[in-house]
Amino acid sequence: MPNRYLSSLLMNYKGRKILIDCGEGTQVAMKIMKTGFKALDIICITHAHGDHLFGLPGLLSTLGNSGRIEPITIIGPSGIEEIINGLMVAVSGLPYEINIIENPKNYLSLDLLANSKQLRQVNEKDFSTENIMIEALELDHSLPCLGYNFYVFRRPKFSPEKATSNQVPKKIWQKLQTGEAVNYQNKMYEPYMVLGEKRKGIKLSYITDTRPLDTIAEFIKDSDLFICEGTYGDNNDLHKAIKNKHMTFSEAAELADKGKVAELLLTHFSPAINEPEEYKVNAESIFKNTIIGYDGFFKSLTFEEE
Amino acid sequence: MPNRYLSSLLMNYKGRKILIDCGEGTQVAMKIMKTGFKALDIICITHAHGDHLFGLPGLLSTLGNSGRIEPITIIGPSGIEEIINGLMVAVSGLPYEINIIENPKNYLSLDLLANSKQLRQVNEKDFSTENIMIEALELDHSLPCLGYNFYVFRRPKFSPEKATSNQVPKKIWQKLQTGEAVNYQNKMYEPYMVLGEKRKGIKLSYITDTRPLDTIAEFIKDSDLFICEGTYGDNNDLHKAIKNKHMTFSEAAELADKGKVAELLLTHFSPAINEPEEYKVNAESIFKNTIIGYDGFFKSLTFEEE
Repeated sequence: MPNRYLSSLLMNYKGRKILIDCGEGTQVAMKIMKTGFKALDIICITHAHGDHLFGLPGLLSTLGNSGRIEPITIIGPSGIEEIINGLMVAVSGLPYEINIIENPKNYLSLDLLANSKQLRQVNEKDFSTENIMIEALELDHSLPCLGYNFYVFRRPKFSPEKATSNQVPKKIWQKLQTGEAVNYQNKMYEPYMVLGEKRKGIKLSYITDTRPLDTIAEFIKDSDLFICEGTYGDNNDLHKAIKNKHMTFSEAAELADKGKVAELLLTHFSPAINEPEEYKVNAESIFKNTIIGYDGFFKSLTFEEE
Repeated sequence: MPNRYLSSLLMNYKGRKILIDCGEGTQVAMKIMKTGFKALDIICITHAHGDHLFGLPGLLSTLGNSGRIEPITIIGPSGIEEIINGLMVAVSGLPYEINIIENPKNYLSLDLLANSKQLRQVNEKDFSTENIMIEALELDHSLPCLGYNFYVFRRPKFSPEKATSNQVPKKIWQKLQTGEAVNYQNKMYEPYMVLGEKRKGIKLSYITDTRPLDTIAEFIKDSDLFICEGTYGDNNDLHKAIKNKHMTFSEAAELADKGKVAELLLTHFSPAINEPEEYKVNAESIFKNTIIGYDGFFKSLTFEEE
């Protein structure tokens, strides 16, 4: 829109990047924010409406001009592969491969700092190494739509007491500490032998476009940042939210409250809303820690100090 | 780009509209210019590079939301139909039809003010009624690419002397004058019987992306406005222009000079150029009447006063 870009999120984890949604103009917003393109490893698409998708051919072309040659992974709901293949007819000769994952049912685990940058489907959360895990949830919109959780796990602290009690030779402490199993003098040693208690990582949740659901409150549980659509600011527009399968600010705030998240960031405002801040009170009265998103909004999430 | 929209031209003829090229963000530029969408009858695409095309799915979706139900015509080079069909996989349920014309070899004539708004392929220029004619030329780029001429013809002036000498009954003068043949008292009367000499209309030429060609100088002959790519401002970038199949400002100005056009409007500047005005002298020293295009540039072309 003339005065606001379409909703999109770029996550930066130690220089590697994940993008969620890519409406027309997203690459321009990225240029303004000077995010760079080359380190973009994953694109998550919530659903196949144009305002979440039509920037993809342009972004992928620009990525091709950035010197990227590693494969990129695109995750989306059922049907996304056909749509992306259609959009890509006009983009010839990309210097990298595109892997498409439709409607993932398990967790997707990714060690973004490893060279392969390949996502593995895993069955449960893996807290043993510092990595990123992606989880998807089916939402309730006018066509197949996914919400996403992003977990950044934190490696447990090194415990010399545990290493000693497990009789681990000092020589391999450091290697085990980085999460690698070690065979030393014909005996296998596992990382848990030198690591202490689990530590809290970071959880970020991204929910758009949908009606509120009980499964969402469960999905976003204890998120550090819950990014949620707030298409309608005014409570009187509830009938529009119901008809068009969106949410009001109040409904998003109710989800934030039920999910006991740390912070709610509202985005995806109706073009009819010029000043979303005017409706902030409708969310705040239900969930105090609310931010109204704006172009170029930037936030750092860090591990808790100990 | 953050500081400049992609090159695109919207023509407005008595409220009906023709768009040439539609890169990412063109619909945003149209919103800023408050052009409206509903009256857009024709889109001409020069070629299938993203910066001329990737705004199409978004624009056509927006057009669908504008209440348009009349068919729209898209004209482009060989191969454009497959690419447009790909882009449109993500756009479902448009309330209007899309007619695609690939690489037209003849003139396309359109009476934009008639209800049908259908393009007819014709073999020669038709000066008898006030209408618009589109002519395409194959250019020399890295993939199939078309340049376009747009003619707005001007109906010849009514000549009472001619009507009298042709013995045309006064009762049908007005009807013949509007370009319609009339059967009156079992005799056919044609418009030429009441019309005087041809009058100069308007010719607009749009050439991007290409190397200069002799056929271009011929094609743009006597244009009132010659819109031309000037990808490189600096004459020292000629090797880049040759390699990437583009033109320098100087080369565009040489075409303008050879074609004896009234005015040259440069557009399609390389992202490496921040201030195209800095290179204006390179065009002006060859062709004086040069304009450097900018976001929102607007110009009216009118029939000559008599």
